[in-house]
Amino acid sequence: MTGTSRLEAFSDGVFAIAATVIVLEIGVGEGNGGRLGHALVHIWPSYLAYVTSFVTIGIIWMNHHHTVSLMARTDRTHQFINVLMLMTVAFLPFPTKLVSDFLHRPGAQSATLAYTATLVVMAAIHLVWWLYARRGRRLIDDNVSDDELRAVDRAYAPGIAVYAIALLVTFASPLAAVLITLAIAAFYLPSAALFDRRREPR
Amino acid sequence: MTGTSRLEAFSDGVFAIAATVIVLEIGVGEGNGGRLGHALVHIWPSYLAYVTSFVTIGIIWMNHHHTVSLMARTDRTHQFINVLMLMTVAFLPFPTKLVSDFLHRPGAQSATLAYTATLVVMAAIHLVWWLYARRGRRLIDDNVSDDELRAVDRAYAPGIAVYAIALLVTFASPLAAVLITLAIAAFYLPSAALFDRRREPR
Amino acid sequence: MTGTSRLEAFSDGVFAIAATVIVLEIGVGEGNGGRLGHALVHIWPSYLAYVTSFVTIGIIWMNHHHTVSLMARTDRTHQFINVLMLMTVAFLPFPTKLVSDFLHRPGAQSATLAYTATLVVMAAIHLVWWLYARRGRRLIDDNVSDDELRAVDRAYAPGIAVYAIALLVTFASPLAAVLITLAIAAFYLPSAALFDRRREPR
Amino acid sequence: MTGTSRLEAFSDGVFAIAATVIVLEIGVGEGNGGRLGHALVHIWPSYLAYVTSFVTIGIIWMNHHHTVSLMARTDRTHQFINVLMLMTVAFLPFPTKLVSDFLHRPGAQSATLAYTATLVVMAAIHLVWWLYARRGRRLIDDNVSDDELRAVDRAYAPGIAVYAIALLVTFASPLAAVLITLAIAAFYLPSAALFDRRREPR
Repeated sequence: MTGTSRLEAFSDGVFAIAATVIVLEIGVGEGNGGRLGHALVHIWPSYLAYVTSFVTIGIIWMNHHHTVSLMARTDRTHQFINVLMLMTVAFLPFPTKLVSDFLHRPGAQSATLAYTATLVVMAAIHLVWWLYARRGRRLIDDNVSDDELRAVDRAYAPGIAVYAIALLVTFASPLAAVLITLAIAAFYLPSAALFDRRREPR
Repeated sequence: MTGTSRLEAFSDGVFAIAATVIVLEIGVGEGNGGRLGHALVHIWPSYLAYVTSFVTIGIIWMNHHHTVSLMARTDRTHQFINVLMLMTVAFLPFPTKLVSDFLHRPGAQSATLAYTATLVVMAAIHLVWWLYARRGRRLIDDNVSDDELRAVDRAYAPGIAVYAIALLVTFASPLAAVLITLAIAAFYLPSAALFDRRREPR
Repeated sequence: MTGTSRLEAFSDGVFAIAATVIVLEIGVGEGNGGRLGHALVHIWPSYLAYVTSFVTIGIIWMNHHHTVSLMARTDRTHQFINVLMLMTVAFLPFPTKLVSDFLHRPGAQSATLAYTATLVVMAAIHLVWWLYARRGRRLIDDNVSDDELRAVDRAYAPGIAVYAIALLVTFASPLAAVLITLAIAAFYLPSAALFDRRREPR
Repeated sequence: MTGTSRLEAFSDGVFAIAATVIVLEIGVGEGNGGRLGHALVHIWPSYLAYVTSFVTIGIIWMNHHHTVSLMARTDRTHQFINVLMLMTVAFLPFPTKLVSDFLHRPGAQSATLAYTATLVVMAAIHLVWWLYARRGRRLIDDNVSDDELRAVDRAYAPGIAVYAIALLVTFASPLAAVLITLAIAAFYLPSAALFDRRREPR
């Protein structure tokens, strides 16, 4: 039982649940039987929003996983920031549903603004969460090198900016903004792979 | 495998799920596309209720986490009280939805009474749960000092009273009652931080 | 990492989720604002069904917890029976919703039959799950005495019968059948407390 | 804390939640009280779809459990593939709902195609997930024999083909396709039991 184990358990729960309940918001309506194939194609924004949010939450979970593995302990302030961060993650199903319902209709811009704004807030709180733990190595394990901390810095620093760009793109094209969000998650993989060469496995 | 590990696993699950499913109750209706921006502002009670309930559950989780860390074991009576306490936590999404739907409409008082009454019951069962474990150090780890137990006493004692005050304020102003509930969770942090200086990390 | 740890993790997840999503089925309809207090009283079957199902799942979780603690290992057949047992637990929110919606209306008997029949099947699969593990001490830890096994036998044996009685009572009074189900969970506590004197904590 | 423990925690969470939320999609409508018994029989596709999806997810969980137990570590690429695989598992409640709603109505074919296609994609990603870990024993524990790896190969290899057959059968009979899917999960048990004789317990 380490100092971070229940923080991880609660966080893993919220990540897993938030990712998994998104699908509950997808629907075609029971009256569409005669043209169900058509209806299933027509709701393509639901699939795009589902994939984007699921992969985004998955990436955040991976980052959280990696970052917590560098910590030797937690404290109540850190736990409270963690709760705030999870609050934004758990909120994501709502703007995801907005994008699902409105991306191909009037309302697309408002829906996508709500979606990208949620991600900007999430990135900001996640950064605060990291900086609180890292400042003066407050919660960091003694065996973790400064190089490893800087690698995490490089991974967290651009978060707010890239989601802010997606938010701004919404004014030009809501669809493009959602695709950028998906690309952020997808392209995060190779860059992120750079920084875990030494830490995994432990 | 300690005596409390599955109690923690089940409890963490309920806390995480209750916190995460609240968002499923938020909605604007599919017919609002043309004025979606307006509709998203109009449902402000949903955001207030979401934040209040999520932070409240987060705080209860933090207290539960800290308190269980002082226990060396559990027994079936304690597990049963734990189930009752989790039952009130898991119920919270329903009165949260009532506040979301009715805070700015006729019904605000009934909705907020249901919400604050749920919190009073939750605080009462949580106190019983603690007193059962603490009485005669029934479930307490031998390494825990009496000072630490008294610190938890101080944290749990006011729970019923502060939520009862929020309940009473409902008769004057439902909105004020919800804001007080949010303030209880938010202000709990600094006071709570007082009592974990020695226990964390373990 | 013991042989039963992921069985416990998956099971705890299903127990916690099934218990927590029940509340999502409770609702009063948004049109009831003007008489919300009345509407909240009118849906009393929802509260009764919620409490009955939550406490029932909590008790099953406690039994599962205790019984798995007697096992040194699991195998794929046992895991498969565990999946079937969890399938009946995870199904419970549906008949719970039926009882919520119909206990005070035409349909009460069908709804309560569906509810109690689900519990009979659940008790039957839970018994098979235990007998598979216990037969020839197939999965039992060497340190567990035969007395402890017989105590579990005594706790599991009446499950099918008591839920079958609740099912039969449905034909006389659906409400009485639900109250009996609640009483089974509530009265299970003191009797169950008899058999864990030596095992907890471990 | 092993290299795979949080991978397992997050995965167990998604498996458990996806399996448990399926039931939320079952409903009979509140207006059916007078003929509730009839309505409960009429929704038989919901029960068939529920059992099929729950047992399928349970089997996938068992395979995931067994396979991860052969791994000594994970890396970010493997975690990312794991996220993609979980994305298909978490999506399953949506096509399950389609089968529930449309199997006995116009739309049955489109619904069942969506269902079986989801399973084909899931099997494909699960195979990639395994091959990535197994290639050159990249993530495999040194104590695991090649025989054990080949046993897993034999279990994973037919996945895509058997679900593709179910997909093709949809064009002849959607009901038969769903029954085949259920049979795949049910018959998987004895065959799967062949390969875990030595690994469990650990």
